[in-house]
Amino acid sequence: MRMSALSATTEVPVATIKYYLREGLLARGDLSAPNQAAYGEAHVRRLRLIRALIEVGGIGIAGARSVLAAIDSDMPTEQTFGIAQLTVSEQIDPADLDPNFLDRVDTALEGWHVSPQNPGRLAAARALMAISAAGQDDLRGWVRRYTEAALLVASADLDEVDAREDRQEKAELVVVGTALGDALFSGLRRAAQEHVSAERYFQGTAARTDGPSNATSAASSHRDSQEES
Amino acid sequence: MRMSALSATTEVPVATIKYYLREGLLARGDLSAPNQAAYGEAHVRRLRLIRALIEVGGIGIAGARSVLAAIDSDMPTEQTFGIAQLTVSEQIDPADLDPNFLDRVDTALEGWHVSPQNPGRLAAARALMAISAAGQDDLRGWVRRYTEAALLVASADLDEVDAREDRQEKAELVVVGTALGDALFSGLRRAAQEHVSAERYFQGTAARTDGPSNATSAASSHRDSQEES
Repeated sequence: MRMSALSATTEVPVATIKYYLREGLLARGDLSAPNQAAYGEAHVRRLRLIRALIEVGGIGIAGARSVLAAIDSDMPTEQTFGIAQLTVSEQIDPADLDPNFLDRVDTALEGWHVSPQNPGRLAAARALMAISAAGQDDLRGWVRRYTEAALLVASADLDEVDAREDRQEKAELVVVGTALGDALFSGLRRAAQEHVSAERYFQGTAARTDGPSNATSAASSHRDSQEES
Repeated sequence: MRMSALSATTEVPVATIKYYLREGLLARGDLSAPNQAAYGEAHVRRLRLIRALIEVGGIGIAGARSVLAAIDSDMPTEQTFGIAQLTVSEQIDPADLDPNFLDRVDTALEGWHVSPQNPGRLAAARALMAISAAGQDDLRGWVRRYTEAALLVASADLDEVDAREDRQEKAELVVVGTALGDALFSGLRRAAQEHVSAERYFQGTAARTDGPSNATSAASSHRDSQEES
């Protein structure tokens, strides 16, 4: 197909496609005639991947180039994970972290094979530092339970990767799952918070069946009443 | 203490403290003498909370004002959850979502008390849309397993909240946990990915004990060798 058809199929503007071509994110089409390139299914697939990574995953052009190079290389899946993690994660300088919080993370991860430079280890330590700076402590095994849940999620991630046949499909899923899995999980966490909150605080009350019975709609009602007053 | 001492104690510059005062995030100190306000422990605590929310939680000034107002109000905890969720979550217009993906989320959440406007429900649908647009399907119950893990995390969140005695402490934790819990979890997820990856792909090999045995350090080696070539 011509570039105009590629644009129509993927709903990506021609100018954007040309930009991705210049930036080396998308391979040039086959030259079917002088100055006329033909694009195929591989281009459609790659263009959709790029859009998802950049628009929803929040990866920049340089990051996209890095993970796409990993997908197109012959590196094993576990290396692709490392590159996807580095690309998707904010760079944190260990020197900016209080060693006590790194120790707390390492205690929570005891027995795990995690390298000191794993970006998640550093990000978890920074989050714990901020939670502590905000005056909160872990009273009921919060971090330990998060760690158990993270293991379930990572096992689900790896099972999906293992269910793919060829190397490139696996690598694409590693990148997509790393970039978009956080958004999926945090969304489900908010839904679960409302559910658990409703179960605990509204169990057996009329509110549960007769009207707004959960945190978000309660908050909405609150906002409405604020606006009215 | 004077404002200069408040600044020294919290490591927040005086100009920033004055900005927070003007924006109404921080209460004015008690006027001990004309033009001289005295600040106490409550100010130190509030200032640390504001910094953690804004600097690590990524909440803007307007968002911080909204959640602090919720903390200082007398609304019940479950309403504070709703406000914290709305503040921390990106606004998503349901009209921008393919209804099929909202259906998939609702199927995953079947039996849960979740309102249609829960921001997490919408965010999860958008993430699923992007994952699908990127050419990936759920082959091994990925979403279901994420949902189970989200329930563990939300239960841990609520248990921590319930462990606090007074309303304001609970409300502060709701806000801090909602804003910073995502970062903690995604960090632990990356660590868990490396661990599970190492367990599956390097089990019993020399690499596990003799050298870089995990995804991130393998990726680092790969980057090094790229830079050398």
